[in-house]
Amino acid sequence: MANAIYAQSGGVTSVINVSAAGVINSWRANNKGILYAAENGILGVLNEELIDTTSLSEFEVKKLRQTPGGVFGSCRYKLKSLEQSRKEYERIIEVFAAYDIKYFFYNGGNDSADTCLKVSQIAEQLGYPIKAVHIPKTIDNDLVVTDNCPGFGSVAKYVATSIREAGIDLKSMYPSSTKVFILEVMGRNAGWIAASCGLASTDSETPPHIILFPEVPFDEEKFLNKVKAVVDSVGYCVIAASEGTRDKNGVALGEATNTRDDFGHAKLGGVANILSNLIQTKLGLKQHFAIADYLQRSARHLASRTDVEQAYCVGHAGVQFAIDGQNAIMAYIKRVSQEPYLWEVSHAPLHDIANKEKFMPRDFIDDEGFNITKKCREYIEPLINGEDYPEYSNGLPDYLRLSYTKVAKKLNVFKS
Amino acid sequence: MANAIYAQSGGVTSVINVSAAGVINSWRANNKGILYAAENGILGVLNEELIDTTSLSEFEVKKLRQTPGGVFGSCRYKLKSLEQSRKEYERIIEVFAAYDIKYFFYNGGNDSADTCLKVSQIAEQLGYPIKAVHIPKTIDNDLVVTDNCPGFGSVAKYVATSIREAGIDLKSMYPSSTKVFILEVMGRNAGWIAASCGLASTDSETPPHIILFPEVPFDEEKFLNKVKAVVDSVGYCVIAASEGTRDKNGVALGEATNTRDDFGHAKLGGVANILSNLIQTKLGLKQHFAIADYLQRSARHLASRTDVEQAYCVGHAGVQFAIDGQNAIMAYIKRVSQEPYLWEVSHAPLHDIANKEKFMPRDFIDDEGFNITKKCREYIEPLINGEDYPEYSNGLPDYLRLSYTKVAKKLNVFKS
Repeated sequence: MANAIYAQSGGVTSVINVSAAGVINSWRANNKGILYAAENGILGVLNEELIDTTSLSEFEVKKLRQTPGGVFGSCRYKLKSLEQSRKEYERIIEVFAAYDIKYFFYNGGNDSADTCLKVSQIAEQLGYPIKAVHIPKTIDNDLVVTDNCPGFGSVAKYVATSIREAGIDLKSMYPSSTKVFILEVMGRNAGWIAASCGLASTDSETPPHIILFPEVPFDEEKFLNKVKAVVDSVGYCVIAASEGTRDKNGVALGEATNTRDDFGHAKLGGVANILSNLIQTKLGLKQHFAIADYLQRSARHLASRTDVEQAYCVGHAGVQFAIDGQNAIMAYIKRVSQEPYLWEVSHAPLHDIANKEKFMPRDFIDDEGFNITKKCREYIEPLINGEDYPEYSNGLPDYLRLSYTKVAKKLNVFKS
Repeated sequence: MANAIYAQSGGVTSVINVSAAGVINSWRANNKGILYAAENGILGVLNEELIDTTSLSEFEVKKLRQTPGGVFGSCRYKLKSLEQSRKEYERIIEVFAAYDIKYFFYNGGNDSADTCLKVSQIAEQLGYPIKAVHIPKTIDNDLVVTDNCPGFGSVAKYVATSIREAGIDLKSMYPSSTKVFILEVMGRNAGWIAASCGLASTDSETPPHIILFPEVPFDEEKFLNKVKAVVDSVGYCVIAASEGTRDKNGVALGEATNTRDDFGHAKLGGVANILSNLIQTKLGLKQHFAIADYLQRSARHLASRTDVEQAYCVGHAGVQFAIDGQNAIMAYIKRVSQEPYLWEVSHAPLHDIANKEKFMPRDFIDDEGFNITKKCREYIEPLINGEDYPEYSNGLPDYLRLSYTKVAKKLNVFKS
């Protein structure tokens, strides 16, 4: 018998709790010791804020599958190198030892892949036996090796559905009202989420007409010409803009140093606001914009069934890989077949994954730079397939509100 | 045998097409003449842009029930008084006469109620026999007489679900990340949509913690104190803000004349942007905001089943009322019983409805002015009840894309 710690890290998603359910059920099926959840990611390990997941009922675990956000709390806290953050890594091992932790499951994106790798390294240095497994999670879809990242498919489904719906709205009104609509979506460095909006379009007439990717330098003149051309031919124009849209010098539109427009107005706010001002002042077209922000990554009501299944399976398989003796690995999704779409969960060393980023390949973006290619569509489309509706109560999704007591502390307070 | 015209007006909703389906099916069941749809609302009547709805297949009418936006096009075009817009009203009657139109169904909000009333008046003046019936539709829920307006229940469900989801996201992250989240929702004069966000909260800890209504003058100091108090006690704060939030002089936050903050930055953008800047500069708290914009009124994927049923029935009953001889009326929703919630469609004279606005009653807002009362919750809750999912194809809602040919024109081009 040995114990384990599971923790959630980084920006949460609508399906990270599904991975938690996968981890819990897999652990229970293996009939091992206690699975603890650390509160607020690695901070919960450092501060010895631990929850005994044995207390979760089967009903609660089932509800976890339907609940967005991170039920145990997540964190934005990046550990540095083993040298720079040595005290913290040693504290992690101290906590592991105090609770007889032999398995560590870290559920997050790039930073947590790095942390997970370093935890396995410090353990090796100190001669402490641990199996550290990274469970991938990021709406940004920017982890390497894995075909896609749990959390992404549901955001993709949400933004593509939303822009299709808003596009229909605009089409109904444009002859006497708004001509241009902008949806600002997440993805600071990689354009995967913006690209997903492209799934809503079935031909050149159907929205979105323009997609702005972080990977394609923003050219104001080219952009405005395109907006004008679309409005001239279609009558209205729908734009999907990544929050990370940037100029040829890599300066994000929201952070441009030139913060005054032609009228001396300061340019505040993010990409949508800036594009909207541009379209108003340079083209004189009435525009509206929506900023999806946290709505897109918490929209469990519109999760992709494929995404839900994959999130569950990386958690479930991750536990099995660890128990089978794997260490310093990530459980990842392998696309086995495109037509029909088939996938399986495999594992790969974190050495090949941590601190790398997967951007949109150039051949996923068309020559003009404003749309996705057939290849991109074929890649994303299976990931949004299927629905997985939560249960509703009084007209609203009935999400789990977990109340738990933390285990009594055994160690001194940690001071970093 | 006599013919009819149906038209959609004003901002579209996720269920205005459901009313269209109700009108079409009811008309067909009555076995009358041709039901025309005017393209882009009253503009389609003025310009003789008419669609013969006989061409719509049963499958297409069924799909209409699942499709947001206005399939025949809507318009933002307000006719003035009978004196000021006399030429246009006479043109409407000219078109009616040319197509033997004896029934006019106008599906919209306040402005279209007024237009519908005036059409019946000019017809009477000119001795032209018409039965003009207004089919209510507005997400703003601000029509009088009717208990609620079709379109509102689905927006209410969308914003309440969205703020619940985003609130769960924030709760997962606040110890090391964002402390305040703002969702900006529609409703320029009436706070019904903002109020709906309050349904997501089940106790004082649960988001949203603050609701800003157009009906309650915005007091910066009181607001910031409240945000601080919530963050101090709950740890984080979720705010629902109506786009129409305004100060004690009635000046909307987005239109404030004082457009410089303490740092000399211009305050651009809408309410969410302004609140976000306030919270950053005055309280130093990390914040995020989402602007739902058109997403909220086109989100057919999350429509309220109650709303869908009511939208259908006002359309269906409206036709029957006209055929039964009613004129210058609105088909409206009457709450017959609260517990269990029961409703029926009745009719009332447009005289009592046009040019009036229904705001949130004072006893729907609590004394502090930042939340809804039990009475308000009991009013809105039944309206969001039930789900009515559209069909999906390739992971996305498979909405109707209607292609139609317009009938050949008989009249001269209209010049206003």
